[in-house]
Amino acid sequence: MQTKFTDLLGVDAPLVGFNRSPGVVAEVSKAGGLGVLAATAYTPEELDAQLTWIEEQIGDRPYGVDLLVPEKVATGDPGDLVASLRAQIPAEHLEFVDKLLAKYDIPISADSADGHDEIMANFGSAGVPKLLDVAFSHRISLVANALGRPPANLVDRAKKAGVVVASLVGKPEHARRQLEAGVDLLIAQGTEAGGHTGTIATTVLTPEIVDIAGDKPVLAAGGIASGRQMAAALALGAAGVWCGSVWLSSNEDITPPAVKEKFLAASSSDTLRSPTRTGKPARQLRSAWHDEWESPGSPRPLPMPLQPMLVNSAWDRIDRAAAEGHEGAKKLESFFIGQVVGGFRQLRPAGDIAREIIDDCARRLTELAALL
Amino acid sequence: MQTKFTDLLGVDAPLVGFNRSPGVVAEVSKAGGLGVLAATAYTPEELDAQLTWIEEQIGDRPYGVDLLVPEKVATGDPGDLVASLRAQIPAEHLEFVDKLLAKYDIPISADSADGHDEIMANFGSAGVPKLLDVAFSHRISLVANALGRPPANLVDRAKKAGVVVASLVGKPEHARRQLEAGVDLLIAQGTEAGGHTGTIATTVLTPEIVDIAGDKPVLAAGGIASGRQMAAALALGAAGVWCGSVWLSSNEDITPPAVKEKFLAASSSDTLRSPTRTGKPARQLRSAWHDEWESPGSPRPLPMPLQPMLVNSAWDRIDRAAAEGHEGAKKLESFFIGQVVGGFRQLRPAGDIAREIIDDCARRLTELAALL
Repeated sequence: MQTKFTDLLGVDAPLVGFNRSPGVVAEVSKAGGLGVLAATAYTPEELDAQLTWIEEQIGDRPYGVDLLVPEKVATGDPGDLVASLRAQIPAEHLEFVDKLLAKYDIPISADSADGHDEIMANFGSAGVPKLLDVAFSHRISLVANALGRPPANLVDRAKKAGVVVASLVGKPEHARRQLEAGVDLLIAQGTEAGGHTGTIATTVLTPEIVDIAGDKPVLAAGGIASGRQMAAALALGAAGVWCGSVWLSSNEDITPPAVKEKFLAASSSDTLRSPTRTGKPARQLRSAWHDEWESPGSPRPLPMPLQPMLVNSAWDRIDRAAAEGHEGAKKLESFFIGQVVGGFRQLRPAGDIAREIIDDCARRLTELAALL
Repeated sequence: MQTKFTDLLGVDAPLVGFNRSPGVVAEVSKAGGLGVLAATAYTPEELDAQLTWIEEQIGDRPYGVDLLVPEKVATGDPGDLVASLRAQIPAEHLEFVDKLLAKYDIPISADSADGHDEIMANFGSAGVPKLLDVAFSHRISLVANALGRPPANLVDRAKKAGVVVASLVGKPEHARRQLEAGVDLLIAQGTEAGGHTGTIATTVLTPEIVDIAGDKPVLAAGGIASGRQMAAALALGAAGVWCGSVWLSSNEDITPPAVKEKFLAASSSDTLRSPTRTGKPARQLRSAWHDEWESPGSPRPLPMPLQPMLVNSAWDRIDRAAAEGHEGAKKLESFFIGQVVGGFRQLRPAGDIAREIIDDCARRLTELAALL
C-alpha cells in the first residue's frame, strides 16, 4: 500500500502501532508498519535503554516516540512544584479515595507515591526536555505529541534532524492550531479511541481533519483494530491508521494480566470516557472504580495534574492487589482502552496482529473495487 | 454498485434515505437509492395520502416506511391510557418546564396539547396497527422498526407480502434478538447518529453486527453523509448505508427554517445525547434547552413516554416562536441531528445530495483500489 504517510515515513504499510512496550514497537516496525513508543512514563535512562533495544531488533526500519510535551515548561525546583500542587488537593478528595480503597479492602503498599511524584515533577519541568534529548540522540523518524501544540523549539529541532512531528487532534480547531505550529502529520482521534479523547466519532472527524490538512497526511485513530476498519479509515481519506488499543491484546504488551483478563471478557459497551484517572476525559474500561466516583455524594474529579496525583498511588495498590488475585481489587481494576476491546478474543503476538490488519486491509480494498 | 442490499431491494445503489418528508423519500428513490418515510407522527389518512403521492413520483422504483411498532400493544381506551400516563407526571416537572418557558419569554399557544395526546394514544394502542394497514395497502418494499423487536404478526404479514423487515440496532445483543424475531435486514446505528442512539461508534459497531448477521445484509447508520463515509461503511462490511441526518440539509425536508439555520451554523461538536425530549438518549443539537436541564436543581428527565408528554407542547411553542424570530425561542430551538451536522454548508435538493453521495462513493472505491 502506498499513501502520503508511507511516502513520508518510508514504511511498507500505513499502520502505526502506538504502545508503551518496546516489544510491541519493534514487532510493528518489523511487520512493515511504524512502531511508536509511548515514552512519557519512563526515566531518561530507561528510555535510552529501550530505544537502543528497539533499534537492535528492527535493523534499519523506522520507528518513533510519543511524548507529552507542554508548550510552556514550568521553571523552578521540581520538589517545590510537586509540594505546591499537592497542597491544592482538597481533604475531601483524599478522604474519598482512602474510603474507596478501604471499602474494597485494598492492601496498603508503601513504595508507590515517591515514584509518581518524580514523574509529575518531570512532567512539569525538566523531565520532558531530558526525554527529548534522549529521543533525538537516537535515530527516530517521528515524534508525536498528544498535549496541545508542540513548542517551537521542538518543531525546529525535529526539522533539522529530519524527524516528522505528529500531533493528535480531536476537533477541527485543534487541527488548525497544530498546522500553524508547523506539525507534519495530524492524527484524527475519534471518540471511540482509548485514553484521552473527545466526543466526535472517527467517521465524522477524519474527513473533517483531512479537508483542513490539505497536502499534509492524516492518520485516523479510534475504532481501528482490523483490516476492515483500516480500509474504512483509508476510505474516509486518511493516509493511514494510528492503532493503540489493539496492542493491549498482544503478548508483548506490559499491561498487567489482571487487566488483560478483564479486556478479554469485555464488550464494546464496557468502556466510558471518564476524568477520574487523569483529570481529563479518557476512555477506559468501566469498573467499580467508576461506579464509586459516580455515586451520590462523591466529589468531582480534580483537573490535571491534581487528579493523577490524587489517584496514582491508589492505582498502584489496586494493580498490585489485583495481580495477586484480590477480589476487591479485581472489581476496581481498569485501564485505558477503546471500544475495540469488544473484539479481543485472545492474546496474540503483536507481529501477527500487525500483519493480519495489513493483509486484511489489502484484501478488503480489492473486494471493495469488485462492488462496482 | 451491487451488494446484498441492492439484490434484496432491487435498487441501483445501496443508499437509504430516511426522512419524514415525502419529497425527500421520492427524490432518494428516484436517484437510485431507497427512500424510507418516517411514518409514526402521521395519522392514517395523512400517511395514505403521502404514500400515494410518493408512488406517483417514483414510478416503479421501490421505497419503504419506518414505524415505531411496539412488540406488545396496550389494550383499553386510548383516552384512559393518556389520562393515566398524564397523572404520572410529577408536579415538579410541570413546574420546571413552565418556568423554563417563562424564563425565555416563550408565548403561549393554545392548540398543541390535544394533537400530541392523540399521537400518544395512537402510539400506545390502536394507532400503529392502523398505520401498518395503510402501509401494507401500498406497494412498499421495506418496513423498518426502530422500537425493539417487531411483533410476530408484523413479520408474518411482511413475509406474505414480500416486504423486507428491517430493524435498527445499537448493540450486538440487540442484533441477536432481532434475528431471532425474523428480521431480514439489520441497521447498525453508531453513537454519532442523530435521534435515539447508543454509545458504540459506527467503526466498531458495524463489523460486530456484520459478523452476527451472517448471510443477512447490514446497513451502517451514523456518521454517513458523503461518498467517503459511504465507502467507509462498505469497507467495514456493511451492504449499504442508512442516512438520516444529511437530508435535514435538503430543501425538501420539512424541518422548520429556524432549526435548519442553526444546523447550518453548527459544528460536529455541537450535538449531545440527551433524554430530555423523548425520555431515552437521543442525539440532537445542543441548545439553551439542554443547559437548563443540566443546571443544578433541575429534575431528572422522565422515562418514555412521560417525557415527551411533558415537553411536546413546550416544543410546539418554542418552534412557533422561533419561526417568528423570537430571540428566546431561537436560543432554545433544537432538533434531532447527528454529528455530520458539522458538514452542512447550504440547503440543496435532496436528489443532488443522493446522487453526489453515490457518485463520490463509487469514485472513492476506485481510488482505494489504486492504493495497492
